[in-house]
Amino acid sequence: MVKIIGIGGSLKPTSSNRKALVVALERVAALGAETRLLDLHTLSLPFCNGDRDYPDYPDVEQLRYLVAGADGLILASPEYHGSLSGVLKNALDLMSTQELEGKVVGLVSTLGGPANSNALNDMRIILRWVHSWVIPEQIAIGQSWQAFGEDGQLLDPRLSERFDKFAQSLVTHTRKLRGESP
Amino acid sequence: MVKIIGIGGSLKPTSSNRKALVVALERVAALGAETRLLDLHTLSLPFCNGDRDYPDYPDVEQLRYLVAGADGLILASPEYHGSLSGVLKNALDLMSTQELEGKVVGLVSTLGGPANSNALNDMRIILRWVHSWVIPEQIAIGQSWQAFGEDGQLLDPRLSERFDKFAQSLVTHTRKLRGESP
Amino acid sequence: MVKIIGIGGSLKPTSSNRKALVVALERVAALGAETRLLDLHTLSLPFCNGDRDYPDYPDVEQLRYLVAGADGLILASPEYHGSLSGVLKNALDLMSTQELEGKVVGLVSTLGGPANSNALNDMRIILRWVHSWVIPEQIAIGQSWQAFGEDGQLLDPRLSERFDKFAQSLVTHTRKLRGESP
Amino acid sequence: MVKIIGIGGSLKPTSSNRKALVVALERVAALGAETRLLDLHTLSLPFCNGDRDYPDYPDVEQLRYLVAGADGLILASPEYHGSLSGVLKNALDLMSTQELEGKVVGLVSTLGGPANSNALNDMRIILRWVHSWVIPEQIAIGQSWQAFGEDGQLLDPRLSERFDKFAQSLVTHTRKLRGESP
Repeated sequence: MVKIIGIGGSLKPTSSNRKALVVALERVAALGAETRLLDLHTLSLPFCNGDRDYPDYPDVEQLRYLVAGADGLILASPEYHGSLSGVLKNALDLMSTQELEGKVVGLVSTLGGPANSNALNDMRIILRWVHSWVIPEQIAIGQSWQAFGEDGQLLDPRLSERFDKFAQSLVTHTRKLRGESP
Repeated sequence: MVKIIGIGGSLKPTSSNRKALVVALERVAALGAETRLLDLHTLSLPFCNGDRDYPDYPDVEQLRYLVAGADGLILASPEYHGSLSGVLKNALDLMSTQELEGKVVGLVSTLGGPANSNALNDMRIILRWVHSWVIPEQIAIGQSWQAFGEDGQLLDPRLSERFDKFAQSLVTHTRKLRGESP
Repeated sequence: MVKIIGIGGSLKPTSSNRKALVVALERVAALGAETRLLDLHTLSLPFCNGDRDYPDYPDVEQLRYLVAGADGLILASPEYHGSLSGVLKNALDLMSTQELEGKVVGLVSTLGGPANSNALNDMRIILRWVHSWVIPEQIAIGQSWQAFGEDGQLLDPRLSERFDKFAQSLVTHTRKLRGESP
Repeated sequence: MVKIIGIGGSLKPTSSNRKALVVALERVAALGAETRLLDLHTLSLPFCNGDRDYPDYPDVEQLRYLVAGADGLILASPEYHGSLSGVLKNALDLMSTQELEGKVVGLVSTLGGPANSNALNDMRIILRWVHSWVIPEQIAIGQSWQAFGEDGQLLDPRLSERFDKFAQSLVTHTRKLRGESP
């Protein structure tokens, strides 16, 4: 069974970004993956200063431990100023190839305005730097504040279908790349 | 007289990134600009959650006030994982077009390994998003830990010359774009 | 009077990309700029092999001569495979800083599907490489096949307004950066 | 046995770009892959105009046929103006997901000046657009004109070792992703 951890780049518990991440994790769970949502707003993380050790912030080790133990990741970021959020970039800065190399990653972004690929592109290049594998399937949700119903489910069935394909690719390829028989 | 503010993406007071920023500011000051270095490690800034108001963090308003009052900026970032630091991206996330539109910006990056343009490229696209003007001249310093002498000055005269051209372009074009006669 | 040359990345005379370029040039002409549309399908250009001289292709010198004589450029590209067209990249490869340095450039892209910024971002970075100035204002037209009326004019008044602002910025800043009094 | 096709973005038969591609193909052949170098200068290809059919250019179908039959690709591009060459982008424009989806791709770039990742980054994003898988390992060769001996072999043993790791990753992961047992 593959383990997939979801990390979101918005600190708001009610954000559409978090809703998108929840849906994505539900879809991979439905395919048999073990999932966990790692809420950055529940962790006490410092700004990365380039060092490896942050003795005053035990949550840094917690973050690293959880990610190191996963087979794959889903990163969901709001697009701020045409890139991923600083919050999420800082969380990635606190990790290294030790945790991220060889991980299989699916990317999601949410935008207040029209959809765009900037945050997705930047995350793809950043994750290559730490030798992760990013699946080709990716999802950008424009006007994401109106994409979800009160139950947190996607209102647009075509978008929902894209989440299914995204989840299918992530689970299948995590199995292939992590050496399990698909 | 044009006002140029320098912001660095490293929190370490002794970092080569800060040294590069100090040199860049000295060069624009030598051309008649009024300069100020804004050290992010001296400010108490929150992680941006997408909101505009951070009543518990008055330094957010201080950051915005100082940047809004400048004509131009120098942004210097260490390259972390093939992009700008999360620290610097978060500081930019805390601002908006209100502070950044129309500003003329010069970009510097420092790397522990060989030079590369990833952080510079990402900063260029991010700054366009907030309608800043980024000058074509930019500087990436590879192996930056060995680039500076004990006096903080650049050891390589050709690199030093690039800083002069960078400063010349930033001051000249800030004057042109901000409407002063060059 | 500033001279602006438009170059399009589609070889089809009836493409929506060419229509977008025509509209953009009309708008800058209305602001007093001298304009010219350079249709790549009317030039006989070789694939760039990295050399400077192409004695069998006099149109290479014609392209360079026209661009060198302009103050500003409008580059319009269809987005092919998440980037600018190879046709347009090849035309840029045939030029160098000799023609492109210091030019002020506005960017437009057209897409068959939803709007996206990939081609715009790549053009922005490429043009920086040859030391052009790219204005912050840029336009991506999604579903561009349905954006224009039979008269070639834009059907969406808000998009039309964006072209006006784009043209205003290009003309104003070309004057400022090229040293004329605005 | 996996089939790997190499395509280079330089039209010069004596270019260091072609030498890098030859070395990369030799290394994957040594690991048991079937390889083929596809020299763009030996094909008669048109500029892509967005159409699928080019009846006057049978080599377009030849290019597509060969790529469609491969399991993986090595793309090697010189970096022209901070991106891949227009020649190579145009060759990719002439193909689509029909040929490129699911292919496993390794990227190499060669530069006359210092190494940089721009062409590699742009190729990575372009290939994602057509749903290829790009391996994390990638190689940029700075000052590539002095990287090879008269026998075409790499002079720097550390760079040679990087080619070995690159080849190992490409072959191993092509097998995993294409469904063979590794």
